Amino acid sequence: MDSLYSSYDVIVVGAGHAGSEAAGAAAEIGAKTLLITMDLDAIAKMSCNPAIGGIAKGQLVREIDALGGLMGKVADKSGVQYRILNTSKGPAMWSPRCQSDRALYSKTMRLELEKKENLHFRQDNVVDVLTTEDGKKATGVRTSTGQTFEAQTVILTTGTFGNGLMHIGETQMGGGRSGERASIGISAALEDLGFEVGRLKTGTPPRIDGRSINYEKMDIQYGDEEPNAFSFMTESLPTREEQLTCWICDTNEEVHEVLRSGFDRSPMFNGTIDSTGPRYCPSIEDKINRFSEKDSHQLFLEPEGWNTYEMYLNGFSTSLPEDVQYKALRTIPGFEDAIMLRPGYAIEYDYFPPYQIRRSMETKITKGLFFAGQINGTTGYEEAACQGLMAGINAARKTQDKDEFILKRSEAYIGVLIDDLITKGTEEPYRMFTSRAEHRILLRQDNADLRLTELGHKIGLASDERFEAFKTKKEAIDKIHDLVADYTVYPEKMDPMLKERGTSTLSQPVKAKTLIPRPELSIRNIFEADPELKEKALEITTDGLVFEQVEIQIKYAGYIEKEFEMVEEMKKQEDTLIPDELNYDKINSLSAEGKEKMDRIRPETLGQASRISGVSPSDVSVLMVYLDN
Amino acid sequence: MDSLYSSYDVIVVGAGHAGSEAAGAAAEIGAKTLLITMDLDAIAKMSCNPAIGGIAKGQLVREIDALGGLMGKVADKSGVQYRILNTSKGPAMWSPRCQSDRALYSKTMRLELEKKENLHFRQDNVVDVLTTEDGKKATGVRTSTGQTFEAQTVILTTGTFGNGLMHIGETQMGGGRSGERASIGISAALEDLGFEVGRLKTGTPPRIDGRSINYEKMDIQYGDEEPNAFSFMTESLPTREEQLTCWICDTNEEVHEVLRSGFDRSPMFNGTIDSTGPRYCPSIEDKINRFSEKDSHQLFLEPEGWNTYEMYLNGFSTSLPEDVQYKALRTIPGFEDAIMLRPGYAIEYDYFPPYQIRRSMETKITKGLFFAGQINGTTGYEEAACQGLMAGINAARKTQDKDEFILKRSEAYIGVLIDDLITKGTEEPYRMFTSRAEHRILLRQDNADLRLTELGHKIGLASDERFEAFKTKKEAIDKIHDLVADYTVYPEKMDPMLKERGTSTLSQPVKAKTLIPRPELSIRNIFEADPELKEKALEITTDGLVFEQVEIQIKYAGYIEKEFEMVEEMKKQEDTLIPDELNYDKINSLSAEGKEKMDRIRPETLGQASRISGVSPSDVSVLMVYLDN
Ligand SMILES: Cc1cc2nc3c(=O)[nH]c(=O)nc-3n(C[C@H](O)[C@H](O)[C@H](O)COP(=O)(O)OP(=O)(O)OC[C@H]3O[C@@H](n4cnc5c(N)ncnc54)[C@H](O)[C@@H]3O)c2cc1C
Ligand SMILES: Cc1cc2nc3c(=O)[nH]c(=O)nc-3n(C[C@H](O)[C@H](O)[C@H](O)COP(=O)(O)OP(=O)(O)OC[C@H]3O[C@@H](n4cnc5c(N)ncnc54)[C@H](O)[C@@H]3O)c2cc1C
Repeated sequence: MDSLYSSYDVIVVGAGHAGSEAAGAAAEIGAKTLLITMDLDAIAKMSCNPAIGGIAKGQLVREIDALGGLMGKVADKSGVQYRILNTSKGPAMWSPRCQSDRALYSKTMRLELEKKENLHFRQDNVVDVLTTEDGKKATGVRTSTGQTFEAQTVILTTGTFGNGLMHIGETQMGGGRSGERASIGISAALEDLGFEVGRLKTGTPPRIDGRSINYEKMDIQYGDEEPNAFSFMTESLPTREEQLTCWICDTNEEVHEVLRSGFDRSPMFNGTIDSTGPRYCPSIEDKINRFSEKDSHQLFLEPEGWNTYEMYLNGFSTSLPEDVQYKALRTIPGFEDAIMLRPGYAIEYDYFPPYQIRRSMETKITKGLFFAGQINGTTGYEEAACQGLMAGINAARKTQDKDEFILKRSEAYIGVLIDDLITKGTEEPYRMFTSRAEHRILLRQDNADLRLTELGHKIGLASDERFEAFKTKKEAIDKIHDLVADYTVYPEKMDPMLKERGTSTLSQPVKAKTLIPRPELSIRNIFEADPELKEKALEITTDGLVFEQVEIQIKYAGYIEKEFEMVEEMKKQEDTLIPDELNYDKINSLSAEGKEKMDRIRPETLGQASRISGVSPSDVSVLMVYLDN
Repeated sequence: MDSLYSSYDVIVVGAGHAGSEAAGAAAEIGAKTLLITMDLDAIAKMSCNPAIGGIAKGQLVREIDALGGLMGKVADKSGVQYRILNTSKGPAMWSPRCQSDRALYSKTMRLELEKKENLHFRQDNVVDVLTTEDGKKATGVRTSTGQTFEAQTVILTTGTFGNGLMHIGETQMGGGRSGERASIGISAALEDLGFEVGRLKTGTPPRIDGRSINYEKMDIQYGDEEPNAFSFMTESLPTREEQLTCWICDTNEEVHEVLRSGFDRSPMFNGTIDSTGPRYCPSIEDKINRFSEKDSHQLFLEPEGWNTYEMYLNGFSTSLPEDVQYKALRTIPGFEDAIMLRPGYAIEYDYFPPYQIRRSMETKITKGLFFAGQINGTTGYEEAACQGLMAGINAARKTQDKDEFILKRSEAYIGVLIDDLITKGTEEPYRMFTSRAEHRILLRQDNADLRLTELGHKIGLASDERFEAFKTKKEAIDKIHDLVADYTVYPEKMDPMLKERGTSTLSQPVKAKTLIPRPELSIRNIFEADPELKEKALEITTDGLVFEQVEIQIKYAGYIEKEFEMVEEMKKQEDTLIPDELNYDKINSLSAEGKEKMDRIRPETLGQASRISGVSPSDVSVLMVYLDN
């Protein structure tokens, strides 16, 4: 190989959500990094909905941010509306979400990446991953301009572009996303090296001209009164008045009737597409097909940005023929005169079933080659971004001869996501849910910094500034804890408030802390009832998130403790490493299925082995005994 | 034809510089307009240098603005540096130019277009122009999604995308612009209808990582102290301190040596590209080949925007192999460590030799089909934009059964450009120069509003607000004219100033106006020397451009008058229309060559006929006599 350019530590292919985080992280922790992407004006472009976060996804963004990644920061700078979802449930379920200005998000991400000293950009199309002759080690990439670039590690994040094929009804077009071309070459090259390549599909709704809508027929949806940031470092956000609104509307039987009339020409139903789509982001035709008893589905009409009239019709993803889309659209109340800026479409693309990568995101076949994002079978910007972050960290660390950086299932949703991918594989696009995390009471969005910022700082990703802010917050939390544990409150001051809030009064003075677990009370109620206590608290900090944190920790102390015990119990299994080259055939007492599955997936820990479907508890015991010897 | 959508008045294909103006103008003057473009996030994208205006091009922008077009307004909102070129020459040569924030320009143009009520957007790829069966009338377009859209008129503005083929050394890639795909289908369809299709080429320099440059080896170039806007409606611009700077550097013999070493692998010299490129934007290899006596060429390193480190190396356009580009680049003083974000490349694309269109931009073969921009064989954003504007106006007017809107060579550079195109054709990409305008003393940038705003308002394009501002300015000009013509200045007040400025003193009182023609004096000098006069002037207006205008009109009155006389002389020829279907064969005394040329080009006026090469003065006389009868 004869490259014009000097060699890089890390090459990132693709600047979507995974690639942006990967490149940002690798460069930040000191690796000489090259980001090659097809269009430098389309960095971190949102292919589908103009929103970041949401249930469980919001937690991922908070974790990315706590570690020093970019997504939270960029989302905060480009949001047009902010809401916390699920506030009626416990804090483990609270999930931040924002509507984004699509163009501003992309621009802001580029600017953030431009700040990274060790990062170079290249606009180009990668057509091949270069390896040593035996395919065992990545050495660089080749682009369509005929150039080669050498690197110690290569991170592939080509998203939905791999042999991308778009469908609208019976029409098919090659491409990686509407208006952009597909990526051809890489999958075949990797197949030659022994990689398994699969096909998945996803889809997107039509975009609407907001001027053509009758908003009187819809419900308005405002942002939160007090908007919450994704980033632990963001200091201010637009007020509710400054934020944009969304709109809620519903399909009805008539709309469904029109949609059904196109089923015979639908690529989803007539056999043209046989790859699997995301179960939890189904197309509208899927919804009326699978839930035929429902005579209405909710839709959200969301702004695409501060100044544009383009709107996104969330919930109406479809690849039906355009005439059907259009007719159905115009049957929705409020959409009688709707104008479509572009029809919805489905896209099929290549992915690499993720049993082929390790926890570090490195591929098993080719050392130094990492996969991240949609190509690992996930769906969603946040799922892609956190993988990119981990791949960027680990690729850089590899070039620095440092340990793999792994997050456990008990430490982060990111850990859950990666463990799920590599252990269970995906037959359909994988998206994150709170229910996927067995320790979700520990993995809250509110404590992502407490869980991860120290780790992020240690590996050189979270900045000193962030680490200082984190330490200050942590100290304040401890002090407020001490304060409420030490401070005695008296019936005189508390009782009127307690009565007002419908909870029993005090028979004697108690420590303030003992009141916090009562569901009727917040820590603020107690402070307000005792000005001296409040003053002492405000002397420690004025940061409302500190009070919220202490309140959550005390209110849910019982659950949290129990969860920690469970984590402790599993610790041995999770920490027991299985050698890479273990020959399962040699372990006689393993079940045949257990052997086969473990041989394919090659779990890295006993814990991971225990989660492989087909591996029985007795297989795990056998393996544990074997490894102990 | 069976369209899903209701019919439009005007469909514009492509949202480059021509398409944006076309769509904006058509919608503004009341036509129901659809703009179809491949990528709605890349509207009015600058394919090459991040700058608007320049010699003669700046005049075009001022004319577009005076008529009510968008380019000037958008350039003012997205400029990072403003300069008037050629200020050492007479006012006919002054040419405004600005460096632009590339991304902001594109975004701002989209926002301007979104404000047009009659304009709809569609992201899609047009593959065919639909016509009546005989091809004589356009009826709509078909897109790659299989949809048809009907319209009374269609404006094609597909730029460099038609069968676009990019070259870097020996590497070739299909595409309309780096990172974007080509447009396939339309040229072939039009060829079938009888259109002649040709090939042209253009090129672009590599983009540079600004952090990798040693600026100490370069000269800095600031914007103007008092920045001048393109738009007659712009009220403020960034100050010189706020503006960004450019950098000037030079190639040397060593650089040329490296470049020459790649000539055998250059698509320009080894026969791969045989289409013609823009003579006045030559590639660097062209420059060192054609001007081999020059041992240095000047280059400008220009910022790509407010916040990006991407920079554009103006003057270094090249399609040499990347290794040669890179090596040569690094040989330029200051570029020793330069990093290339993308290599330069050349692109070949289809164009339609412009004898095939009328003055209105409508094609002769297919009524209702208009061509505008690069596809007519021009080069440059400004050249494209003004054609788009005229096509948009005329397409809309056609649907409203109104006359063609034509600008004469004596009225506007726009008139010169279109007349040149349709009369002389182009064998190489056409760019505007002041020397192309025989009446350039009349066609100044400073008086574009005086020449055109009333016309623009009459056709419903220039807004009432603009028209009012224009009228106010015009009245003020008249009043200042009257003031200086009436007001007597005395030696006491004038002589000290006249001495200081090195011009002869007064022997007696004179009217202020008589002093203005003196080359040493500006109108301001005279005002400053007589506070009473100054006060009277400021009572009329505080607009410096009014004073400037009066000064120019008086200083150059002699030239201007002579020019008007010449225009008057030509008027009869220019106003004499030639019937569309005139049979030249029947006019016996015409020369054979004259007949042949006129039959091909089918001039619309006697004036136009006189400018066709091969048509002799006696042919013109014969034709005049014939038409008079
Ligand atoms: C039509 C559509 C609908 C979707 N719908 C949903 C949905 O409903 N819900 C949901 O959660 N998610 C949806 N997604 C998925 C979401 O967009 C992805 O999860 C996310 O963008 C993945 O991020 P990524 O970084 O892995 O890849 P992408 O965002 O796809 O980015 C890939 C990047 O790689 C670049 N690239 C590709 N190939 C090459 C190459 N060979 N050389 C150089 N650069 C290259 C591309 O230019 C791009 O910058 C949808 C995606 C699409 C396209
Ligand atoms: C590599 C390169 C170098 C150049 N160098 C110079 C230079 O040095 N000096 C100079 O003055 N000019 C240069 N130019 C030319 C300059 O970019 C053009 O003059 C100008 O952009 C022309 O404007 P336009 O509107 O005619 O076309 P473009 O700006 O090319 O816009 C065409 C538009 O049409 C859209 N489109 C194309 N086909 C279809 C379709 N089938 N369906 C839907 N939409 C479609 C495209 O997406 C695009 O939006 C260069 C151009 C290129 C590509």
